[in-house]
This record gives sequence, C-alpha cells and structure tokens, in this order.
Amino acid sequence: MYYIGVDLGGTNIAAGVVNDEGKILRSGSVPTNVGRPFEKIIKDMADLVLGLIKDEGLTLEDIKSVGIGSPGAIKNGYCVFANNLGWHNVPLCAELRKYVKVPVYADNDANVAALAEASFGAAKGYDNSVTITLGTGVGGGLYINGQLYGGSHGCGAELGHMCIEQGGIQCSCGNRGCWEKYSSATALIDAGKMAVNYAPDSLIAKAVEGDASRVTAKIIVDAAKEGDKVALRIFNEYVEYIVMGLISIQNIFDPDIIAIGGGVAKAGDFLLDAINKRYEEQIFYKEIGYGKVVLAQMGNDAGIVGAAMLTK
Amino acid sequence: MYYIGVDLGGTNIAAGVVNDEGKILRSGSVPTNVGRPFEKIIKDMADLVLGLIKDEGLTLEDIKSVGIGSPGAIKNGYCVFANNLGWHNVPLCAELRKYVKVPVYADNDANVAALAEASFGAAKGYDNSVTITLGTGVGGGLYINGQLYGGSHGCGAELGHMCIEQGGIQCSCGNRGCWEKYSSATALIDAGKMAVNYAPDSLIAKAVEGDASRVTAKIIVDAAKEGDKVALRIFNEYVEYIVMGLISIQNIFDPDIIAIGGGVAKAGDFLLDAINKRYEEQIFYKEIGYGKVVLAQMGNDAGIVGAAMLTK
Repeated sequence: MYYIGVDLGGTNIAAGVVNDEGKILRSGSVPTNVGRPFEKIIKDMADLVLGLIKDEGLTLEDIKSVGIGSPGAIKNGYCVFANNLGWHNVPLCAELRKYVKVPVYADNDANVAALAEASFGAAKGYDNSVTITLGTGVGGGLYINGQLYGGSHGCGAELGHMCIEQGGIQCSCGNRGCWEKYSSATALIDAGKMAVNYAPDSLIAKAVEGDASRVTAKIIVDAAKEGDKVALRIFNEYVEYIVMGLISIQNIFDPDIIAIGGGVAKAGDFLLDAINKRYEEQIFYKEIGYGKVVLAQMGNDAGIVGAAMLTK
Repeated sequence: MYYIGVDLGGTNIAAGVVNDEGKILRSGSVPTNVGRPFEKIIKDMADLVLGLIKDEGLTLEDIKSVGIGSPGAIKNGYCVFANNLGWHNVPLCAELRKYVKVPVYADNDANVAALAEASFGAAKGYDNSVTITLGTGVGGGLYINGQLYGGSHGCGAELGHMCIEQGGIQCSCGNRGCWEKYSSATALIDAGKMAVNYAPDSLIAKAVEGDASRVTAKIIVDAAKEGDKVALRIFNEYVEYIVMGLISIQNIFDPDIIAIGGGVAKAGDFLLDAINKRYEEQIFYKEIGYGKVVLAQMGNDAGIVGAAMLTK
C-alpha cells in the first residue's frame, strides 16, 4: 500500500506519495495563497494529491490513507485554530474527503514531524520521544507510549511556550518569557543583528558588510566556529537557553530520545556537542539513564512522511 | 475483589485494604526506620499488609494485587533510586512478593497520587490529567491517554524540576531555577520567615510572636486572607510562580484537568481563585478550551488508594 502525506504551510501546500518504508516516491507543491476561502485551498490540495497519485501510475485503491500536517491546533479532523492560515474550526479532513475518497487524518505540523522521526528517523524504535524544531518559533512533538500525543483540546505539545523567564520577553501567544523567544532561530538571528550594530569588528558584522538585515543563523554559527568572540558569546548563551528547555523536557518526559530539527539544527555536531556538554552536566538522575539528545534525521521530508504516517 | 495500597514514606509505611470504589476499609502504619537493610523494611511492610488482610477477615485469595507508592525513580518493580530512603536498585516488588503471594506493582508516590485523582478524585472520568503536589517540594503525576506515564527510565513527571529561571535558586537536584524552589510549601514558608525578620509589624510576625521558625503555610495564607499587605505580597508572588508552571503544563500537555494537592492546597478556594484568575489571563488558546485547574480531592487517602489502583 501507499500513503499520501500533505504538508500544509502558510506559503505552499506540499504533498507526496510515500511507501511503507517512508520513502517519498513522488512529490509536488502548489501555493497556499492564504486568505482564500478554505474550500478553495482544500480543493487545490485535493487536485495536487489526485494528480500525484495519477502521475505515479496509482489509483485510489492503492492508497491506504491521506494525512495532513497543518499549522495550529488540530482536533478530530478539524483545524480548530491556525493563526497563520486565519482558520477557525475548518473541517480539514471532511472537506478533503469530498474529493479524495480514502480515510483522511490530520494533526499539527510539529507533531507530524515527531511522527516522522519516530517512524523512520532519529527516534525510530523508541516508545517515548520528543522532537523539537528550532525554526521561526520552537515547535514540539510528543510521541508517548508509541503514539502521538496532542492534548485533550488539540493544543498540547506547544513546547516553545514553556515559560522559562518570569516577566521575560513578550511572546505572540500573549504570555512573557516563552522558551521560543530565547531558543528559536529568530532569537539567535536577533542577537546576531544586535552584534552587527554594537560589535562592528565581529565576523558577523563583516560577513554581512554591516547590513543587519542579512544576518542568518548560519552566519552566526560559522563565525562562532571560527572562534569569533562575539559570535561565541551569542552562540553559547543561545545554547544555555536551549539546554534549559531540554532539561525541563527530560525532567517532565524522561524520554528515550530528544531529536532536534529545524533550520538551526543544520549547524550539526557543532551545535549538538555544545548542547550535550551542558545538558549532561545538568541531568538530575545521571546514573539512571536519560533521554539522549540527537539531531533529527528526516530534514525536509519530515512534513510529508510524518503526515503520511498519520494512518491507522 | 480487594486491593492493597502501600504508601512508603521516609518516616512511615502506611497501608490499606481498598475496595473497588476506592474506599479504604482498613488501614495501618509502621515506622520505616530508614537506614536499615531494605529486606528488613520490606519485611515490616509485608507483616503490615498481611496483618491488615487478616484483621479485615480476608485471605490472599480475596486480594487482586498489592501496589506500592514509593519515593524516587521506580521502574519495572525496582526502586532504581530514592534519595531519602538511600536506595539504589532495590527489587521492591520481588522482595514483597516473597511474603505476599499476589501480584505486586510499584510506582513513584507522586504518580500514584495522580492515579488516585484520576481513579476516584478530581480527575475522575478524564483521559488526560496532571496532578501537582505542593509540599516540601513540588511533585507531579501524569495520567496520559488513560494511564500513568512515568518516563522511559522511571524518572519522568518530575514537574517540580522544570526550569523556570535561568541561573535561579540552587536546587537539590544540582540544577538552578527549578519550579519547586518557587512554588513548594517550603518556598512559601521561607518567604514568610523573611517577613518575620524584615516586617515585624506584619500579621505573620505577630502570629508567630517574632519566632520565624514557627511560620507555616497556613499562617501566611490566613494573614493574606485578613488583608495583611506583607502576607498578600508574598502570597501573590507565590501564586505568580505557581501559575507560571501551570501555564507551561497547559502548553505542554493540554490536559482535561490539572489537580492541585499537597499541604498548601488546604488553603482551598482562596488559593484556587487566585491561581485561576492569573492562569486564565495567560492561557494561549483561550477560545479552544484548556485544562481546568481544580483542587485535588483525595487528600491523605491519595497515597494508599492510588497505590492500590496500580493493579492491572
């Protein structure tokens, strides 16, 4: 059998035909064009899916199910709320099912990424894993007792909104001091932008020729690798905040594995080694065993493959 | 059938015969006398259990199982590590089974309290609940998808060790800024003791006649209820820290219910109302639904009843 995974984003809808081994056999994408009625967006999604099935030489009889990874709070096939799609109570699965007559499942995109890691990636073979995505925000996905956990109202696993500083930085969620304000790629980049303005001799400032708007996570990490003092200070402080959240995650979940993905994770072992050094120093029950921190492995495939695995 | 629940503590071993409705029909306790070989402590536990069964007019054939709630990290029937018992890798279940020939189960005491609430208390009827115990420390128990969750190595659900302040107060776990250093009864009492020394006109100082060592959580709460400004400031700040952790718990678990127990929870609605006011202000997805914060209901019975419900 084959599975369809749909990665619904604010910019594009990506989809793929996935086999039993989690391999994407064929994929494609169309623009989301947010702002249109959800019926039109989901119709485009359906056309994309049906086209991929046909192009792969398959029929609906070959497809076990379609899974959709969506931003926001997802519950019982509904997108209950998704800020960046402007959606409230959209019947995601039922609407797609009008066109694609196989079982349709949906879950939050960060949860889906965790399912991809648990099925075929860094967390494969483990009952309990947590997947963190360090991107624009910090996403979290919880795989507990061999299944995804998304909460009673579809808005759990929001690990980026753990509070790590009383009265800290204002977050878009309305609260202050959320983990993602300190540990997202955005937070790292913001610190790099400050450096451009306040430390013009740093390698960061030189790499962007003094133009703060050009700072990327990679530029900061590369400067830190070169031993640039300003970049290292930014990088080390960033790692401290990541580890602060990871220690909470260990103390809360005590999982087998914590997988770290997202754009910043492209820094690879340089980031992972720095995290693990501080993480292992701060573990509570060192002698018992604890969740190992590793890099996520599914990369850009996580959205499609994880969504495909929402099948039952 | 009947069930035996054992509440193993650093001071006493309490046990009870429990029926299907979670009612304790008969209970008793013996001193733990920590420091003795574990075989002697568990032999005393067995004698207590067998005595209760006999005194209740029952035989082992009437008993479905024995459950033990123990401090520390518990996994596969072993007490892997318990600081206040001085235990490492004690085969808790197998040792008791030598004397009490029915199935024996064990779990962490805070998890067991959560199971009691989920079975017969504030969280009854819900699939997902979190129980917090505000005592000497802050204990946490996770009931997820209709079962207890204790982590892959038996040291999960340590909610008191979520990090809420970078470089904050030193904790006995080796880390800094743990939630329990701000939200335990101990933290509240410590603040009250400071008040005795620095605000001798406060109702707290008057209640203890200037003797800081006599400060209790109740004295602080009573002074706050009377409108004493110092006590209110302490109480409100304490509530802020509790809520900070509860918001994280909501964002992580999105449970049906968060039940608050332990000594401080005896402050009842005065505490609960103050918590809920701030909690509801800080909820992320207000319109979707979220875990309601309520008082735990099982009180002193939680340890025995929850342990009894460890049965399979």
